[in-house]
Amino acid sequence: MPNVCAKTFGTEKACAGRGRKGVSIREIARMTGLSITTVSHAINGTRPVSEKSRRLVEEAIRRTGYRPNLAARALKTQKSNIIALIIPSTEPGNSTNCFFFDVLGGVKDTLQRRGYDLIVSTYSERRSDIRLDSVSVLKKSWIDGLLLVPNSRHSRYDELLAGVDLPTVLLDRRLDGCDLPLVCCDNESAAEQAVGLLADSGRARIGYLGGALDLSTAYDRYAGYRRALEKRGLPLDPGLVRLGLDYSIEAGREAARELVGQGADAVFAANSVLTMGLVKYLGGAGIAIPGRVAVVGFDDYDWTEIANPPITAVRQSAFAMGAKGAEMLIELIEGREPPERTVLLPAGLTLRESHGPARP
Amino acid sequence: MPNVCAKTFGTEKACAGRGRKGVSIREIARMTGLSITTVSHAINGTRPVSEKSRRLVEEAIRRTGYRPNLAARALKTQKSNIIALIIPSTEPGNSTNCFFFDVLGGVKDTLQRRGYDLIVSTYSERRSDIRLDSVSVLKKSWIDGLLLVPNSRHSRYDELLAGVDLPTVLLDRRLDGCDLPLVCCDNESAAEQAVGLLADSGRARIGYLGGALDLSTAYDRYAGYRRALEKRGLPLDPGLVRLGLDYSIEAGREAARELVGQGADAVFAANSVLTMGLVKYLGGAGIAIPGRVAVVGFDDYDWTEIANPPITAVRQSAFAMGAKGAEMLIELIEGREPPERTVLLPAGLTLRESHGPARP
Repeated sequence: MPNVCAKTFGTEKACAGRGRKGVSIREIARMTGLSITTVSHAINGTRPVSEKSRRLVEEAIRRTGYRPNLAARALKTQKSNIIALIIPSTEPGNSTNCFFFDVLGGVKDTLQRRGYDLIVSTYSERRSDIRLDSVSVLKKSWIDGLLLVPNSRHSRYDELLAGVDLPTVLLDRRLDGCDLPLVCCDNESAAEQAVGLLADSGRARIGYLGGALDLSTAYDRYAGYRRALEKRGLPLDPGLVRLGLDYSIEAGREAARELVGQGADAVFAANSVLTMGLVKYLGGAGIAIPGRVAVVGFDDYDWTEIANPPITAVRQSAFAMGAKGAEMLIELIEGREPPERTVLLPAGLTLRESHGPARP
Repeated sequence: MPNVCAKTFGTEKACAGRGRKGVSIREIARMTGLSITTVSHAINGTRPVSEKSRRLVEEAIRRTGYRPNLAARALKTQKSNIIALIIPSTEPGNSTNCFFFDVLGGVKDTLQRRGYDLIVSTYSERRSDIRLDSVSVLKKSWIDGLLLVPNSRHSRYDELLAGVDLPTVLLDRRLDGCDLPLVCCDNESAAEQAVGLLADSGRARIGYLGGALDLSTAYDRYAGYRRALEKRGLPLDPGLVRLGLDYSIEAGREAARELVGQGADAVFAANSVLTMGLVKYLGGAGIAIPGRVAVVGFDDYDWTEIANPPITAVRQSAFAMGAKGAEMLIELIEGREPPERTVLLPAGLTLRESHGPARP
């Protein structure tokens, strides 16, 4: 069978090589005076050819606009060297998901070095009626592997990826009950540090602003908040907790107003746009930060520097997340089991001026 | 020749269909009791088959994990339905290029509706030694078309895309002396409006902060600044102009300090991160906005709402830019000439509190 295939592929190339301009490998051979076999070896790098032949072929390719057909190579190797990345899209006027552009940057950096291309699909988190399995890219049979940011930790893997049989690595968000390899930030520990910082400056009524617990990131950050309180013997007051918030300035602002109404003397906002809403409310109401209400945010974007005062925030590396996920995926595609199934990337705190002791 | 090809492609499919699990179209035929021809028609949709046959084939595909090889289809149609998008990447802690993630969202939205996939490559604007023609994706022969944000208006098209013969549409940035189709914002008119707003509130010493004139966006915004001054008979004071700035908070801050030192009573910052730097300097120095220095920024991101005061800014739609560019590219790929070669998207001003009359 291998011989038959090899023969077939030879023919394919001759046919398949017919580019947009109607030039075939046969014509390249005619133009250069070389055999089809030599031209094919020169183009596909399957056997060494003389420097002179290589130059002749390159020149003919340049002159004719012949496009060596990589589809033919994919047929031969059964490998496309293309991986798919599926991430949430941004929404107009909402920077939350810019995070995933940095993830994309890290993915692309690794893939480029390793000789892979990146196909990208995005989905809207506002339209819950769109199931991930409707994402057309998943149905492509020529993809070698998949990097996925799931839209919920409850998405059942078999439903989500129905009919898809690809090496897959999850990024940023966990899928419960699923043992797919995962690269994410240690959200629980990061949140615990953030809340600990507020508690250690003497705050006893620390509020929490966070998204839907359906997202593992929001779930883990809330767990970190509770753990920090528990370790310090602080009570968990449900009046100081707002969960399931929409990631928007308006939602953060309104929830911040409620927490301050409940006597919060500090707030941990577990998302960057919620942090913006919190800062906007406190600024507008003339409430001193950190004098009256101390603030720690999540995600260390450049805008935190220009807030008044600059905001102390949890810092994670989206680029590193993408780069590490791509490395793990390539290991899987190339038939090696990555050393760890779950990689928890460390997060840190960038200390600015929004935390600290209360001032009367 | 067509017949020979058709025959060859039949053989290819049989061979090429051998998926990851080693299942071939032949085995699907054996399992279902159908002929290879019928299975091939069912998979490729090349001729109608009975409902029963279709179901049998689908069931066998599900059971075996057979992956119909789209590479074989690309061979047949000479069309991959994949377009490439090449955009600048983000830099850590710098949100400027998040703009291009919104562009990507618009591109993807159009492509998904039209049945195309999106391959993405990004390049760093900090590393000028990387020439765009080294971007590997350009060398792929199976791409149907290209959407490109050039790194400079002086990049020579033939050098940039050497050996690449693809339908191409430029996004956001012009290439001088190149008649490729282009979709961008009307940067000159947008800047003219912004500076006009400042002038019309009585400001006579309006400063300008902008990037390298090598970028057509920066070039056009500076032209709009000059035009607004000229129309109002205001002199152009080189002491009030800072060009070629790095898009960073630090660069914006330092340049803003210089402009205020030169007696600027208003500043138009022609980039969002430069606007951040400007606001940071004015806030830190206790200079009232707009009482002493009025401010208009470029790009209406969510952070402008939480600055103190909220920043008046030029608003453009990155999503619309991507969507329109993708539509034009599909027209070209499908052999139709788009009605316009250059689409200038309108930009508007979002009025907040950082502009207005001076107050002593």
